[in-house]
Amino acid sequence: MKISYKKRCSLQEAQQLISGNIKQLQGEVVDIKDGLQRVTSLTVTALLPQPSFDESTRDGYVVPSSSGSDSGFNCYKIVDEIPAGKASVNRLEPGTVCRIMTGGCVPKGGARIVPYENCVERNGKVTIDAHLSQAGTFIRKTGSEIERGERLVAGGMVLQPMHLAQLSSSGVHSVVVAPKPPVGYFCSGSELKSSSRGLERGEKVSSNAFLLHGLLTSFGSWPENLGIVADSKDDLYGLFSAVKEEGFDVIVSTGGMGPGKYDLVTDIFVEAGGKVIFTALDMRPGKSMLFGTLGSTLFFGLPGPPPAVQTLLNVLVGPALLAMQGVKAPWPQKVQAYLEHPVKVKRSDVLRLKDGVMTLEGGRCQVRSTGKLELPDCYIQLPPGREHFSKRGLVDILWNRK
Amino acid sequence: MKISYKKRCSLQEAQQLISGNIKQLQGEVVDIKDGLQRVTSLTVTALLPQPSFDESTRDGYVVPSSSGSDSGFNCYKIVDEIPAGKASVNRLEPGTVCRIMTGGCVPKGGARIVPYENCVERNGKVTIDAHLSQAGTFIRKTGSEIERGERLVAGGMVLQPMHLAQLSSSGVHSVVVAPKPPVGYFCSGSELKSSSRGLERGEKVSSNAFLLHGLLTSFGSWPENLGIVADSKDDLYGLFSAVKEEGFDVIVSTGGMGPGKYDLVTDIFVEAGGKVIFTALDMRPGKSMLFGTLGSTLFFGLPGPPPAVQTLLNVLVGPALLAMQGVKAPWPQKVQAYLEHPVKVKRSDVLRLKDGVMTLEGGRCQVRSTGKLELPDCYIQLPPGREHFSKRGLVDILWNRK
Repeated sequence: MKISYKKRCSLQEAQQLISGNIKQLQGEVVDIKDGLQRVTSLTVTALLPQPSFDESTRDGYVVPSSSGSDSGFNCYKIVDEIPAGKASVNRLEPGTVCRIMTGGCVPKGGARIVPYENCVERNGKVTIDAHLSQAGTFIRKTGSEIERGERLVAGGMVLQPMHLAQLSSSGVHSVVVAPKPPVGYFCSGSELKSSSRGLERGEKVSSNAFLLHGLLTSFGSWPENLGIVADSKDDLYGLFSAVKEEGFDVIVSTGGMGPGKYDLVTDIFVEAGGKVIFTALDMRPGKSMLFGTLGSTLFFGLPGPPPAVQTLLNVLVGPALLAMQGVKAPWPQKVQAYLEHPVKVKRSDVLRLKDGVMTLEGGRCQVRSTGKLELPDCYIQLPPGREHFSKRGLVDILWNRK
Repeated sequence: MKISYKKRCSLQEAQQLISGNIKQLQGEVVDIKDGLQRVTSLTVTALLPQPSFDESTRDGYVVPSSSGSDSGFNCYKIVDEIPAGKASVNRLEPGTVCRIMTGGCVPKGGARIVPYENCVERNGKVTIDAHLSQAGTFIRKTGSEIERGERLVAGGMVLQPMHLAQLSSSGVHSVVVAPKPPVGYFCSGSELKSSSRGLERGEKVSSNAFLLHGLLTSFGSWPENLGIVADSKDDLYGLFSAVKEEGFDVIVSTGGMGPGKYDLVTDIFVEAGGKVIFTALDMRPGKSMLFGTLGSTLFFGLPGPPPAVQTLLNVLVGPALLAMQGVKAPWPQKVQAYLEHPVKVKRSDVLRLKDGVMTLEGGRCQVRSTGKLELPDCYIQLPPGREHFSKRGLVDILWNRK
């Protein structure tokens, strides 16, 4: 006799219930070279201004302030040459200039750069049209792009290559990021084998393991394969009991979630001390899907069919992992798109998510159903109670912006 | 005296010239568990049909063909139970049924599944309404989803988790993919240091190294940092000479590309035996950018400023790496978007690429300029000869679909 734990909720309620059960992970310090794709736990501010010195933006001559007349030509003695990477120790005196290269450090007393092409150099002296020397300064002033203490990256950001470049320039060596949450996953079903080698009639490859491993990784977690678990009360109980102690932030399973005699995941999860939060979504896929907690570990019991697993990982489990790492807007964006073709579905009493491919054309955002074996990059939301969705009609799509 | 190798071209010409110099990498065999994000070199076809046996889609009773009457009730003897993963060895005889679970293997002689809820079982016998047993078969026939030999993944695809799941189910254990192209990169400039620790006045952190490493990785290559090279003819010559022998598919540098006295990359590249293909794009950024070949290695000499490096990596170098791996449409997509705000630029005689952020709203594709320190997810193409681009006007954007 199966016990009923039926707790239904909408997709939105599911997201709220999941959010409500997430404890944001405590940050850890990593060197910026290990920071790629990690999520910042704190705001990071500049320790150095950008640029960190007054920097020439041209190859030319750096002239001192208040020297020479305002009209006609001025003649200066060249006292030094400053390539990028070198600083002049001396103050620039009136009547003298230094040659300076793009990126060179403007010496004390230097007021502006006059580009080479506007000057005539002969015998260690340079003649400069006074009007030209008034034009632009061609100096990037210290801190003109980023001031010391200015915010470089907010907390909750997934660090991209350019962030790391900005951090490095600004004197930041390490950054506090969320640890990659360890996630254990298993595939439930006595018919499952890890490989198609030696498959007997009636057996299948545990293909969800590939899907789980890849997608869990793409959402920033450390997935660990807990293997295949047969449709056996003892095996499932043993697994749930063991993982309680293992420090996983999340456990995800596939299969064993239906109403059938051998669909044992929900029962054994509860028997092993799990607390059910919901067992069904008012959505397809998701009719049989468990979310609950096992001690401090979150548990997602997903159905067996791979397309459903993919959808639920992208719209619920993956975003939950991002939220855990502190990402501020973890859930897929809901945007509108024009259907490229009519869609006909069996009338349903619940929301249906259909695999879609988004296309942009002439300033319009469009969506079509995936073809056979084509992978979705978004999900078309088809509201309940309707069978026909016409071509060029606007529909909502869920889109994981990456 | 600097030699002039000026060979200008448009962005489109640059893409064609790069394409024309790319040799697609010879594929290597990898286990599918190592296939994630790798690019298939060949079409992969199914070695097993999907499903690989006639599979029940309900918990119920499998009834034999041609047994019982067409109306009223039929009574059958239950001879076996078939859970998922088990196959019955015996042929189903007339007058008998097996209990079968979702995913169970339909025995020989089995014609359809009648779901439990439509049956009455008592004392090892089950009574079934003849009308119901005619309804659906609730059997997924062998090969009904994928036939043996059917194409699963085309060549030139970046393998996603779902592809690996599909391959594994279809009996595929290994796949021919492009090797990850080894790419050497260096940052040129006497002012550059690898860390801000102990930075002297006039020196800078080689922040492009972080940008290069991260972006080159994201385009599927194996980047190797060749370090910082001073603005010295000998050092640059030494580097170009050394890398010729190292088997890199691509070398990328930043800096040293301007018209200045210490901008030596082009000259020394040629001196070391490099063949220049172009040295300037009719585009900003890209005014100073070299593409050439050094033996069988492609060389990209990028300018120094990180925003330019980021743009040129995303629109040229990265796509070239994808093309090398066999990706069919490697270049950023050009799509149209409505400007969210007016854009004013200094009139330019060349195309300008401006960092943008794409947004979708109400079925429209919009774009705005990036804010300070915000990272672009597309590039707004501003054609030459115009200063004003009005709000709600349509512009072309380049978008790296990921």
